[in-house]
Amino acid sequence: MHIVFEHTTKIRVRYGETDQMGYCYYGNYAQYFEVGRVEAMRELGMSYKSLEEMGVMLPVSEYQVKYKSPAYYDDELLVRTKIVLVKGARIYFEYEIENESGKRVADASTLLVFVNKETMSPMPAPTVFLEKIKPFEVQS
Amino acid sequence: MHIVFEHTTKIRVRYGETDQMGYCYYGNYAQYFEVGRVEAMRELGMSYKSLEEMGVMLPVSEYQVKYKSPAYYDDELLVRTKIVLVKGARIYFEYEIENESGKRVADASTLLVFVNKETMSPMPAPTVFLEKIKPFEVQS
Amino acid sequence: MHIVFEHTTKIRVRYGETDQMGYCYYGNYAQYFEVGRVEAMRELGMSYKSLEEMGVMLPVSEYQVKYKSPAYYDDELLVRTKIVLVKGARIYFEYEIENESGKRVADASTLLVFVNKETMSPMPAPTVFLEKIKPFEVQS
Amino acid sequence: MHIVFEHTTKIRVRYGETDQMGYCYYGNYAQYFEVGRVEAMRELGMSYKSLEEMGVMLPVSEYQVKYKSPAYYDDELLVRTKIVLVKGARIYFEYEIENESGKRVADASTLLVFVNKETMSPMPAPTVFLEKIKPFEVQS
Repeated sequence: MHIVFEHTTKIRVRYGETDQMGYCYYGNYAQYFEVGRVEAMRELGMSYKSLEEMGVMLPVSEYQVKYKSPAYYDDELLVRTKIVLVKGARIYFEYEIENESGKRVADASTLLVFVNKETMSPMPAPTVFLEKIKPFEVQS
Repeated sequence: MHIVFEHTTKIRVRYGETDQMGYCYYGNYAQYFEVGRVEAMRELGMSYKSLEEMGVMLPVSEYQVKYKSPAYYDDELLVRTKIVLVKGARIYFEYEIENESGKRVADASTLLVFVNKETMSPMPAPTVFLEKIKPFEVQS
Repeated sequence: MHIVFEHTTKIRVRYGETDQMGYCYYGNYAQYFEVGRVEAMRELGMSYKSLEEMGVMLPVSEYQVKYKSPAYYDDELLVRTKIVLVKGARIYFEYEIENESGKRVADASTLLVFVNKETMSPMPAPTVFLEKIKPFEVQS
Repeated sequence: MHIVFEHTTKIRVRYGETDQMGYCYYGNYAQYFEVGRVEAMRELGMSYKSLEEMGVMLPVSEYQVKYKSPAYYDDELLVRTKIVLVKGARIYFEYEIENESGKRVADASTLLVFVNKETMSPMPAPTVFLEKIKPFEVQS
């Protein structure tokens, strides 16, 4: 089902996340998007932690990112996270990062897969999660 | 110009690179691909470090990755890096990671841009770099 | 001069900061203490960023940490940072981390050194910084 | 028992491990010492991975480090790891890092504790480990 659910969270770039170019290192954005996902799911009422406690894991299967302009040390970034599609075992997120002056820093998307912790096999999105996301369904 | 230049390097998964799923964290692969790039360029005779010393930076502009199967703590991964295209200020790399039993772990690609450190603007690939890569040019 | 200046900040443990033991990896606390320092200095009215812009760097020279009990994924940690001593080029910080239930997670201390960015040599703490810290001086 | 067991391993500083000072970030050394420990134990004939598979974890309890001179991007560092003492559930490591020109970069030490994965309680060093380390015992 197609979803429109959006959440924004703020993340400040740490010193240890910069590199010698003076930019936030390109590999560190994956953590920012993870924080975006985690906070989006918390707002939805279904924390990622509670999901794992139910025996469901959600590993990342695909990840794409476009770096639009650098983020710098101490920048307070706005991470906008959207849940856009849930289909069987799959959940698609999209992300946009802006800096404080509203400049776009990065766009990204991820595909994650619901996995049964016992069998380590893909499984349909849990019913309790579907109930939380259902109100945000839209016609495609 | 289209290029066929391939380099392989080995990387062992560190404990601090795992997460509580017991997998190598999805965000850490970006460092592995960076190591692949750096070692590929070193073999080409043009280290990334020497490029920066010449006043040329090479930030990542786009990055895509597909996670095929998990990598685990202490796995010795084979990172295969290919330079596939150099066009103006742009250079495209492709990557494949395999574990010790030959299982595919991840596929990825990156677009990087040559940037003049003084002006912070894109610039054509430096002549000294083009001379190194020229012997590996192929007809597209 | 001996100082009593204390600041607390909250940090949530990210998924990528856990390891396969299910603990926050021991190496990641260094970033938490850095965030503690940075926020303490911001509250003092002298951001670390502005210090660098003045041509002053503040690398860490010594770091000690005792891990008291594990921090877990999604824990919201309280980082208490104290500036305890400024002496010539040196500044000493102490840190305590507690989890949400008030359990002590870690104790740490660092020695940092004011360094002139031009000469790359140690230098006395800048006057503007001393003015900010002066009100918090105590008799030893 | 007091031990003299020493192992050296090489680690190249990754781009993503630098910070905007152009130094290897102080928090990243913890991973280098972990690699040193892991490779020392592998040479001893008792890999850290096999220890975990036996149900024994080895979390870090204390960690001290002195940063002597900066490490830079692409430096190939020599990490010298010493096992110096095993006492009940405790094992003490010491470390020295040098760069390629023989300059000392950092000194460090760690205390780790053998923990039973089932009970999550400290336990004496496993017999199989003691047998491996016994030949390196010295009188204190």
